Amino acid sequence: MREVFQQELREVQERLVEISRLVVVAITNATTAFNESDVALAEQVIAEDSKIDALASDLDELAISIMALQQPVARDLRIVVSALRMSASLERMGDIAEHIAQLARYRYPDKVAKDSLLGVFSEMGALDVEVAEMLSRLIETEDLALADEIRDKDDRIDELHVSVFEAVLSETWAGTSVNTVDVTLASRYHERFADHAVSIAKKVKYLATGEWTGSGVR
Amino acid sequence: MREVFQQELREVQERLVEISRLVVVAITNATTAFNESDVALAEQVIAEDSKIDALASDLDELAISIMALQQPVARDLRIVVSALRMSASLERMGDIAEHIAQLARYRYPDKVAKDSLLGVFSEMGALDVEVAEMLSRLIETEDLALADEIRDKDDRIDELHVSVFEAVLSETWAGTSVNTVDVTLASRYHERFADHAVSIAKKVKYLATGEWTGSGVR
Repeated sequence: MREVFQQELREVQERLVEISRLVVVAITNATTAFNESDVALAEQVIAEDSKIDALASDLDELAISIMALQQPVARDLRIVVSALRMSASLERMGDIAEHIAQLARYRYPDKVAKDSLLGVFSEMGALDVEVAEMLSRLIETEDLALADEIRDKDDRIDELHVSVFEAVLSETWAGTSVNTVDVTLASRYHERFADHAVSIAKKVKYLATGEWTGSGVR
Repeated sequence: MREVFQQELREVQERLVEISRLVVVAITNATTAFNESDVALAEQVIAEDSKIDALASDLDELAISIMALQQPVARDLRIVVSALRMSASLERMGDIAEHIAQLARYRYPDKVAKDSLLGVFSEMGALDVEVAEMLSRLIETEDLALADEIRDKDDRIDELHVSVFEAVLSETWAGTSVNTVDVTLASRYHERFADHAVSIAKKVKYLATGEWTGSGVR
């Protein structure tokens, strides 16, 4: 029984890795579409989000069936419950990548971020991609150094998020209301994306070290 | 054993009701603070959010211990899993109420929404409060008519959310960049708050009717 359970846990882990790789693709394409005003790529991200949703839903069913059939307790149970939460967060990261792609599509053929903010969003987008890649490797390898790196990248993203507001609220901001609305939402999406990655990374770390936090997805 | 389990499920339900009532208080005070620029009330919402977080965390622990000790299967297992998800969504609703309160605090003694948008935000805030109250009653009574009412209120909130963007992007918008950023974020928070309520209401409905959706919190 124990061996079957271990094999099922590996299956859960593999599926989380699979979903996380689709999230990497989504955020890579979404930020490229956003930075380069590539409407075809934006449409692709939007169309492919349902794949992430379906895989996350399947994974939830698998986790529930493992709980019902294997009746795990203690640490094993927490692993399965945490898989449900990671699945929900990955699915939400896919949604956010879709929101970023939607902004690119709305403004096409214009770029969402202009002139003074191009550099900031380019860096934020690249950091979100790195965070997603590190998260995928973290889930696959459980190399916990990656969890700390994700947290560091998130700190930098938070700084950039603040700098967007400072730019928009400064005397020299020459953007229209459309620009202001767009960059406000875009910055929030970029920041929330990384927050979810930090939340998942914490769960992987707590599970690996045996230290558990009961708190939900923040 | 079955009787013990039923009693534990009632305990889970009672705790969900307790948390949902705190969410009602949080959104009531947050929207009042927001509409009336009441900084003391805003501070109170911000300070009290940790209570919601702690109760949600305790509820998660209870749900996990029920799974470990009672080993529920089939529908019973889904009820407990859904409680974990409802707890995460309620906790997130508390966070969003806190974000609305933070906006009020940042702009004090000014109001966040001005002039032409005062009425829209007043209606959105009142709808969020109604949605939270209906959700709390829904969890308590399982009166499924409330789930449909919540969905209807959410539709109206979505309309108001769109109208905020229309106002901000219109030729006649005279707000500063600060106003534009604030109302963009505020409108998004009001809209997401109700989205989470709809997500929870769906779970209650599916559980009550026996029809289950595997999808995570959207």
